[in-house]
Amino acid sequence: MSKPQVGIIMGSKSDLPIMQQAAEMLEQFGVPFEITVVSAHRTPMRMVEYAKNASGRGLKVIIAGAGGAAHLPGMVASITSLPVIGVPVKSSNSIDGWDSILSILQMPNGVPVATVALNAAKNAGILAGQVIGASDTSIQKKISEYKQELRQKVLDTVPEVEALGKK
Amino acid sequence: MSKPQVGIIMGSKSDLPIMQQAAEMLEQFGVPFEITVVSAHRTPMRMVEYAKNASGRGLKVIIAGAGGAAHLPGMVASITSLPVIGVPVKSSNSIDGWDSILSILQMPNGVPVATVALNAAKNAGILAGQVIGASDTSIQKKISEYKQELRQKVLDTVPEVEALGKK
Amino acid sequence: MSKPQVGIIMGSKSDLPIMQQAAEMLEQFGVPFEITVVSAHRTPMRMVEYAKNASGRGLKVIIAGAGGAAHLPGMVASITSLPVIGVPVKSSNSIDGWDSILSILQMPNGVPVATVALNAAKNAGILAGQVIGASDTSIQKKISEYKQELRQKVLDTVPEVEALGKK
Amino acid sequence: MSKPQVGIIMGSKSDLPIMQQAAEMLEQFGVPFEITVVSAHRTPMRMVEYAKNASGRGLKVIIAGAGGAAHLPGMVASITSLPVIGVPVKSSNSIDGWDSILSILQMPNGVPVATVALNAAKNAGILAGQVIGASDTSIQKKISEYKQELRQKVLDTVPEVEALGKK
Amino acid sequence: MSKPQVGIIMGSKSDLPIMQQAAEMLEQFGVPFEITVVSAHRTPMRMVEYAKNASGRGLKVIIAGAGGAAHLPGMVASITSLPVIGVPVKSSNSIDGWDSILSILQMPNGVPVATVALNAAKNAGILAGQVIGASDTSIQKKISEYKQELRQKVLDTVPEVEALGKK
Amino acid sequence: MSKPQVGIIMGSKSDLPIMQQAAEMLEQFGVPFEITVVSAHRTPMRMVEYAKNASGRGLKVIIAGAGGAAHLPGMVASITSLPVIGVPVKSSNSIDGWDSILSILQMPNGVPVATVALNAAKNAGILAGQVIGASDTSIQKKISEYKQELRQKVLDTVPEVEALGKK
Amino acid sequence: MSKPQVGIIMGSKSDLPIMQQAAEMLEQFGVPFEITVVSAHRTPMRMVEYAKNASGRGLKVIIAGAGGAAHLPGMVASITSLPVIGVPVKSSNSIDGWDSILSILQMPNGVPVATVALNAAKNAGILAGQVIGASDTSIQKKISEYKQELRQKVLDTVPEVEALGKK
Amino acid sequence: MSKPQVGIIMGSKSDLPIMQQAAEMLEQFGVPFEITVVSAHRTPMRMVEYAKNASGRGLKVIIAGAGGAAHLPGMVASITSLPVIGVPVKSSNSIDGWDSILSILQMPNGVPVATVALNAAKNAGILAGQVIGASDTSIQKKISEYKQELRQKVLDTVPEVEALGKK
Repeated sequence: MSKPQVGIIMGSKSDLPIMQQAAEMLEQFGVPFEITVVSAHRTPMRMVEYAKNASGRGLKVIIAGAGGAAHLPGMVASITSLPVIGVPVKSSNSIDGWDSILSILQMPNGVPVATVALNAAKNAGILAGQVIGASDTSIQKKISEYKQELRQKVLDTVPEVEALGKK
Repeated sequence: MSKPQVGIIMGSKSDLPIMQQAAEMLEQFGVPFEITVVSAHRTPMRMVEYAKNASGRGLKVIIAGAGGAAHLPGMVASITSLPVIGVPVKSSNSIDGWDSILSILQMPNGVPVATVALNAAKNAGILAGQVIGASDTSIQKKISEYKQELRQKVLDTVPEVEALGKK
Repeated sequence: MSKPQVGIIMGSKSDLPIMQQAAEMLEQFGVPFEITVVSAHRTPMRMVEYAKNASGRGLKVIIAGAGGAAHLPGMVASITSLPVIGVPVKSSNSIDGWDSILSILQMPNGVPVATVALNAAKNAGILAGQVIGASDTSIQKKISEYKQELRQKVLDTVPEVEALGKK
Repeated sequence: MSKPQVGIIMGSKSDLPIMQQAAEMLEQFGVPFEITVVSAHRTPMRMVEYAKNASGRGLKVIIAGAGGAAHLPGMVASITSLPVIGVPVKSSNSIDGWDSILSILQMPNGVPVATVALNAAKNAGILAGQVIGASDTSIQKKISEYKQELRQKVLDTVPEVEALGKK
Repeated sequence: MSKPQVGIIMGSKSDLPIMQQAAEMLEQFGVPFEITVVSAHRTPMRMVEYAKNASGRGLKVIIAGAGGAAHLPGMVASITSLPVIGVPVKSSNSIDGWDSILSILQMPNGVPVATVALNAAKNAGILAGQVIGASDTSIQKKISEYKQELRQKVLDTVPEVEALGKK
Repeated sequence: MSKPQVGIIMGSKSDLPIMQQAAEMLEQFGVPFEITVVSAHRTPMRMVEYAKNASGRGLKVIIAGAGGAAHLPGMVASITSLPVIGVPVKSSNSIDGWDSILSILQMPNGVPVATVALNAAKNAGILAGQVIGASDTSIQKKISEYKQELRQKVLDTVPEVEALGKK
Repeated sequence: MSKPQVGIIMGSKSDLPIMQQAAEMLEQFGVPFEITVVSAHRTPMRMVEYAKNASGRGLKVIIAGAGGAAHLPGMVASITSLPVIGVPVKSSNSIDGWDSILSILQMPNGVPVATVALNAAKNAGILAGQVIGASDTSIQKKISEYKQELRQKVLDTVPEVEALGKK
Repeated sequence: MSKPQVGIIMGSKSDLPIMQQAAEMLEQFGVPFEITVVSAHRTPMRMVEYAKNASGRGLKVIIAGAGGAAHLPGMVASITSLPVIGVPVKSSNSIDGWDSILSILQMPNGVPVATVALNAAKNAGILAGQVIGASDTSIQKKISEYKQELRQKVLDTVPEVEALGKK
């Protein structure tokens, strides 16, 4: 695989089943990525290094997932100038996801995090693809095709729903 | 000004004082933009046309702000393949902003909206700059400089806070 | 069955177990209906067409169910002049239903959605019956009979509760 | 004015500035209405009588507004078979409107209340017009015209927003 | 059993497992009670009759439990002058109990409902005992004894907790 | 004034404008009361003494108001066997009243607090009157008269609302 | 074991599985502790005695866990001058933990409770260790080592996550 | 002033009016402190340096205040082994303080932040005093005296409240 353009990081191994969905989308779009564990609270200096070096290593977007008092996306965004996509994870220590969402979304002026829905790592992958696609028409095309597939999948359920709905 | 790369749209003229802050950031970064009113609920067909034509007209990012049951960002994202940044506006008909946030953030799989904090149009502007900057080093440089300014502004308050804090 | 007067639409096949309850009530009242899948986010143009043609095809009421950032009811209401009843669905990607409720209920002035309780598709069916019944006394009568049945069912539990309550 | 088709009721005189907006919409659509005070908690028997007699007096829709533990819309809906539209009012004793919304919206199966947004009496008026319009094409036409006006008002702000947005 | 002094009512048979706990406390205190189903929304006239006759039939307190848009306690309180104790039930159609709590608790000035914790029918029974006990020292004594038992039960767990806590 | 039957206590002098409304209702019903400051957090031993002696001094009901982490009503209820009515006060340090409500309402099994609406000290006074009235028909009569007055006040606004509503 | 420096108390034996995690951390740091049941609502005088005597018995920190209307931490803090750490427990009678959190956290000026995350008794144990460690370098060292272990555990998962992430 | 034992830091100069209250308490207790601005998001490396050096410079406690997505307290706690007290500030970009509270309180296992009430910097100062006081009896004494003053201030309001309460 060529040099990664998207870095997917997460606060804990337990976030992997969610965050892997971002990886799957990037694979589908043919965007090279890397994936690893970087904990804001348990490995803060690793986080600082990761964020500092991201741009120099060729990354163009960072996807960061975390739960509870989720500081990883915002702290990475404070250090790098790359766009950071935040995935609020409904982890076991989260209060129905509200803490994860608010501590990722409510960043102060000057330091945005592009927040997606609770557990929506798949959408984070698509968004990263769209960012890369902003200057790469081949990826744009793959995203358009993906949206077509989504549309088709819904249309495919129409006969079944119309039949079942009438019982 | 050259061909706009970012489209800033809002549901109502009353959102302008907030949304203009996105425009100001883009101006500072030298990213050409356009700004207009597109209401999902009052001008739905105008919204459909705007979203359909955005990519063809050369836009690379759309920033959409709305309040209450805020459908504009998500609906635009459903039609275009461009990255869409959503700004939840705490408009007069909003319940402390919760409705604005949730109806922009909680998009289903397949259709992401890059959501920023409540009223954080400034951050939407920066994020749009970061997306454009992913393939434009001159803009990347301006964003880095902006972050330096932010840092300096905080450092400039240090003496005053240290003095006042001791009364 | 004669020409449908009520259109029941939902954002995803997974909403069918909920939305079918609207269909059951309409069947009980003898109101002809149709039921299908229309996704605001995955099939936006299908949604536009559905909403545009609804009145011309003879529909008098639309029932729309969706979850999460639930835009379907409000967007349909923005396009048609027919009364639209919104059913907030507590889907798997919803935060305890709060997002579904707020993004359906909090519509701006000029574009109402008649919102019912979380998952209350049954009530949406009754409400649609009441709208049709406003000019059709035979349906009014069936609704009154239904309310009588409800009353009777409660009364039928009185002896059991009084007995059990005393253990 | 001819015999009222819509009854607008509210729990307290203090709700009048909000609820009058429903009356204004009905006036614009030419739908005859009546308006009065009916308190579920202070005049419960007046409420019972109002709800019992509503259909017999020729009403086709009831709009009920209340705040706090807002029981008026639901209790009226429990007695009459007419469609009831509930307006959650953010009254002085309400907790940011959450109590008003939840105690109107979350009705049990069998007894729907068509709930509109917080303080959205204007939308309640439009919805009542749509219900009457389901069997009255002249009113349907007025509602379509109203939606056209809404659209035009937004379009009229386009030049100003585009000019101001560029400062 | 002698003439009931406390009436326990609930909106639905499904609330019985919760509401029976009120009955158990009253039995323990020797306070005669009755228990039945009275639905505000499905049997509104039964509710009106129940509330109107309660005082005349010798009841001194009413305990009313309901869930969702829980109107039963407040509506009974609007009709009778007896003290009404409300039990918010976390029923299947409730949003985590918030709707049940707010629609019982947030009564307007002039019409109090003595609200207890979510599902706390046991506490409603104790509170009813305390009201009766305000003029009946034999019941007061039983409540004091009950509180002693509670205290003793906690003290009895001390050795076990101290042992287990040290593993 | 004769020996007080109701004790009104509050956590801070700043709660007096709210809590005085309980006193006003008791005065209207002719129920003798006392009123003072007892802070759970700043004068805990004074609180313990107050609660311990309340019954012996002839009190029959205690009304306790507090805001924020509002422990006064629950702690008094833990010490006395008298019925305790809790008034959640929306004090300056409260988060929109949610903390006040939850820390008063959500008492564990065995130790009820009869909670009224946010800031509803007036309702606490009425509820205390109802408790005393459970064995005093003269007070019951005054409460019935008060409810009549409430009803009449609403009826008195009917002509004005009907006139204004039609503009 | 030497004289306890930390007292761990909880409102009910059912909180033990959570609160024991505080004990485990203190054991790991070699801080002597005691653990017992003290219920604010069921054994209020035991609580008063515990809090009054804590400092005299040599305790330096108290960790108090409770759920629902959780008054134990705040009431202990009102009586003792020792630092009190509060653990909001998501007990069975709690509303998703919100009541536990707010009734522990929102203490008035003058009476702090050092609140940790929902169910985070482990963090309460660490915090108690940090307080003791403020004047005991051997404990400080153990805490630093613990943080190193945490870091190492995360680093140990890196290869697995990186491998799995690529599937 | 002697070498500071407590470091008070805040994310922005605008937090000073709140955070200064911590300084005032420490001054009253005679605990030497320092106060400055350290922004997690705008000066991340300054924050890292501050946290790394805190213990070496002789600090024993850090008080950190921040609002919105408030990462400062938790990030400092991730780097230092000193106890960190977090003050959630209801800043202008905060959603009623909920984001500030949750992003400070909900720290993962292993990295506690001792959180105080919203805006309760005064309590943070007291708590810091209690931590220092755990091994310094002269400071313990001052805290006890402060609690006595608080008690006396409440007692001083008793006559006025008792007089005013009776009007």
